[in-house]
Amino acid sequence: MTERETVLAAITAQGDVVRSLKAAKAEKSKIDEEVAKLLALKAKLQDEPERGNKNITLKTPKGTRDYGPEAMALRLDILERVKTIFKKHGAETIDTPVFELKEVLTGKYGEDSKLIYDLKDQGGEILALRYDLTVPFARFVGMGNVFNIRRYHIAKVYRRDNPAMTRGRYREFYQCDFDIAGTYDPMLPDAECVKVVTEILTELDIGEFVVKLNHRKLLDGMFEACGVPADKFRTICSSVDKLDKTPWEEVRKEMMDEKGLDGEIADRIGEYVRMNGGAELVDKLAEDEKLKNIKSAIEGIEDMRLLLQYCEIFGLKDKIVFDLSLARGLDYYTGVIYEAVLKAEPLPVENGKKGKDKEEEVSVGSVAGGGRYDNLVGMFNPKRKQVPCVGVSIGVERIFSILEAKNQQKKIRTTEIEAYVASAHKGLHLKRMEVLNKLWDAGIKAEHPYKQNPKLLAQLQYCEENQIPYAVVLGDGELSRGVVKLREISSRKEDEVPVENLAEEIRKRLTTTV
Amino acid sequence: MTERETVLAAITAQGDVVRSLKAAKAEKSKIDEEVAKLLALKAKLQDEPERGNKNITLKTPKGTRDYGPEAMALRLDILERVKTIFKKHGAETIDTPVFELKEVLTGKYGEDSKLIYDLKDQGGEILALRYDLTVPFARFVGMGNVFNIRRYHIAKVYRRDNPAMTRGRYREFYQCDFDIAGTYDPMLPDAECVKVVTEILTELDIGEFVVKLNHRKLLDGMFEACGVPADKFRTICSSVDKLDKTPWEEVRKEMMDEKGLDGEIADRIGEYVRMNGGAELVDKLAEDEKLKNIKSAIEGIEDMRLLLQYCEIFGLKDKIVFDLSLARGLDYYTGVIYEAVLKAEPLPVENGKKGKDKEEEVSVGSVAGGGRYDNLVGMFNPKRKQVPCVGVSIGVERIFSILEAKNQQKKIRTTEIEAYVASAHKGLHLKRMEVLNKLWDAGIKAEHPYKQNPKLLAQLQYCEENQIPYAVVLGDGELSRGVVKLREISSRKEDEVPVENLAEEIRKRLTTTV
Repeated sequence: MTERETVLAAITAQGDVVRSLKAAKAEKSKIDEEVAKLLALKAKLQDEPERGNKNITLKTPKGTRDYGPEAMALRLDILERVKTIFKKHGAETIDTPVFELKEVLTGKYGEDSKLIYDLKDQGGEILALRYDLTVPFARFVGMGNVFNIRRYHIAKVYRRDNPAMTRGRYREFYQCDFDIAGTYDPMLPDAECVKVVTEILTELDIGEFVVKLNHRKLLDGMFEACGVPADKFRTICSSVDKLDKTPWEEVRKEMMDEKGLDGEIADRIGEYVRMNGGAELVDKLAEDEKLKNIKSAIEGIEDMRLLLQYCEIFGLKDKIVFDLSLARGLDYYTGVIYEAVLKAEPLPVENGKKGKDKEEEVSVGSVAGGGRYDNLVGMFNPKRKQVPCVGVSIGVERIFSILEAKNQQKKIRTTEIEAYVASAHKGLHLKRMEVLNKLWDAGIKAEHPYKQNPKLLAQLQYCEENQIPYAVVLGDGELSRGVVKLREISSRKEDEVPVENLAEEIRKRLTTTV
Repeated sequence: MTERETVLAAITAQGDVVRSLKAAKAEKSKIDEEVAKLLALKAKLQDEPERGNKNITLKTPKGTRDYGPEAMALRLDILERVKTIFKKHGAETIDTPVFELKEVLTGKYGEDSKLIYDLKDQGGEILALRYDLTVPFARFVGMGNVFNIRRYHIAKVYRRDNPAMTRGRYREFYQCDFDIAGTYDPMLPDAECVKVVTEILTELDIGEFVVKLNHRKLLDGMFEACGVPADKFRTICSSVDKLDKTPWEEVRKEMMDEKGLDGEIADRIGEYVRMNGGAELVDKLAEDEKLKNIKSAIEGIEDMRLLLQYCEIFGLKDKIVFDLSLARGLDYYTGVIYEAVLKAEPLPVENGKKGKDKEEEVSVGSVAGGGRYDNLVGMFNPKRKQVPCVGVSIGVERIFSILEAKNQQKKIRTTEIEAYVASAHKGLHLKRMEVLNKLWDAGIKAEHPYKQNPKLLAQLQYCEENQIPYAVVLGDGELSRGVVKLREISSRKEDEVPVENLAEEIRKRLTTTV
């Protein structure tokens, strides 16, 4: 064992000690003592001078991965298509730093705050990596005194989760957000968000889906009608949120045992959350004796009536369902909430490694979500002015995984090279560079072998493997007549073309064949 | 003062204590003690529950900024043009995580390692934010057993520097890297990198520039010839690197006083580093009595001869200079090194706030740099196999600043909306949504007011302000005849168009006018 390996082993062992103490709920002082030992060991590792060929652990950090050219080609294509739809709806884009002052993120994510990545205090501000794009957006709007903006933001966010990477879930992952901030007439921006989600999911062709719709005010009104104490609305809402993964019986038990709800009250909730449908459900709820006198319920129901009407005009009737069991986890929603789910489980994401646990199987159906958050921006405005917001976030990593699995067979081109400049025999590399330079200067995407004297066969093979449409083959015979051979790789057809017309000829052929 | 403000004030005061102790080089134990107090104060701030309207500091972290829609429109346009040139040279793209295992970064950046952002140890791996894109690329190549790749990577990197933000320098900033990895014939990939840099700087039209070229082996040979001990090559190289900002006399003094070099040796170096030129300089050096017998000098000179020849074929003769004072800071270069500098200072970047200090004025001229690093990948390969690499990094933030200053007058469009669907009078919002939906479904980029009954004048004004080419104006009279008014915003000309042909008509007009 090298010294380094010894330290690594000691860290593993000490980590176990800490974990077992924590599991056993040992005294805090005892735990702290062992944690200090662990940190000292880790520091040892860090201080060790790392020169040249020491044993660096060859991996990316837990929950992250590299994306090679093929993965990137697919990802960029998908992001481009998402962006096109965001732009079709007139969205601008903004960018915010990857980290924020920690206090900006504090208190926004409920229990999930523990998943925030903190930066080390190196003698400056206390910073943390962004957890989503919504809070940075709210900070941008509030801090900048922006009162109207429709923006998209495609960027990575960070969560110290224990994700199932085989299912397209990571600690570093892209979010694609579309949000409309501004004071507008009810449900007009909200309906457009549903339109955007359905357009994207349709465009990407990932399978049948449905967008579930609900309303936080209706949920609150329903809780009130059922007799839930006001201070338990949010925690009961969290329980309801589990209904997509957990049977009602278990959720009911949680409400009673963990959250201290009366069984009768839970049963009343149970009746409501089983309801879903369309406009007829709005009518039914509007007539509901228990909800009728509750202001927030009425407001929620009227919003839903309008939203369903607007969605119908937008041609979305078959894509949406008003679902009273939809709750969403985040605290900051204040109105309409959305969640798009795939109807059937798509292809297995990785060959053989199918997720085992039921929970994972069901929950991964979610591919987009969002809602209205009218009270977030004010926290970040110097004068506490609110700007109502509504938005959706596309779960694009999940979509990448699905489409990656679908595309496993296809060979994706990862470069856009249009012409390859080849030598037919030795001694031509300077001439080749001259021709290559002419093509570059004319805007043709071109390359040549980085060898002085490559073999012709190898060069043509390279073109075939990389699906390059044309090869320009130089030979002394042709060059003496001021021409080169232009070879179409797919047909192997060759024509002589004057060097001076070469770029033009390639451009012409490319535009006519595509 | 709120409790929070009291703590904040205490932190500031305690920070001063720590800094003055450090400045006074006080005992480590004493400093540690005061640092501990500082950390405790900061922790207090962090633990404080942050609910709702508490006083959040309204700022982005030091050295970072938000980019609003206008800044983003310009930035994306520039990045797109850079990308186009990378693709013209057949580059694929990859992506790597924003953080790496700390040990991956350790020992790669010399003195600048202190600028690395560490993540807090939250009970897992020891992580740090990437400092550049080169080391992650080398890790990708080595770890993945990649032996040939030409890739570009446009992404943000992180440095805890004290940058002059008015000059376009930040703690979070974009790098645009183009690298060629693989075992190839000498200088063929190296020359292409110079071509790529000059194409990009020409395309972006940021002013006159020159690409300085030199060679690490020649520098080493020169040091050897001058009598520098081998173990001082790298540190003397760092001194030479300062010559773009510092007069020779000061650099000479540093070599002697700080690095213990003999005055005579320094003077010999001084003679070489004053040399620059083209092919004639290669000839002169090849004949140099002191260099003639030094293997690495000869190798460097022969590489430079080839590089200058290839650059000339690529039409770059006027854009390059072989400059013996170019050294580059980073340790990992092993061959050719590049640096592109602007010939004249461009426009002042921010109105009035011109950088005061001479150093800043001069150094900011650098807009791209790079070189050959043949020994980096092996550190990350399980079998220590080396893959030779050469690459360039475009200093795109500096370019953003210059072009932002240039574009200050222009109004940049931040959306791509093609048609705005307006109501001529009340009661039309449902009909408007129907028409809007038709346009969306036909792929037209369209929007409408998020108001049920907006004023016509306000709607048309909005179109003019936002440079939207067409407004579709709905009115009961026209709708009863199945038509709408299509108004060209710039000319205010209106035509009646059947609703069923609307999308097609707009598409036709857009393609003919653009």
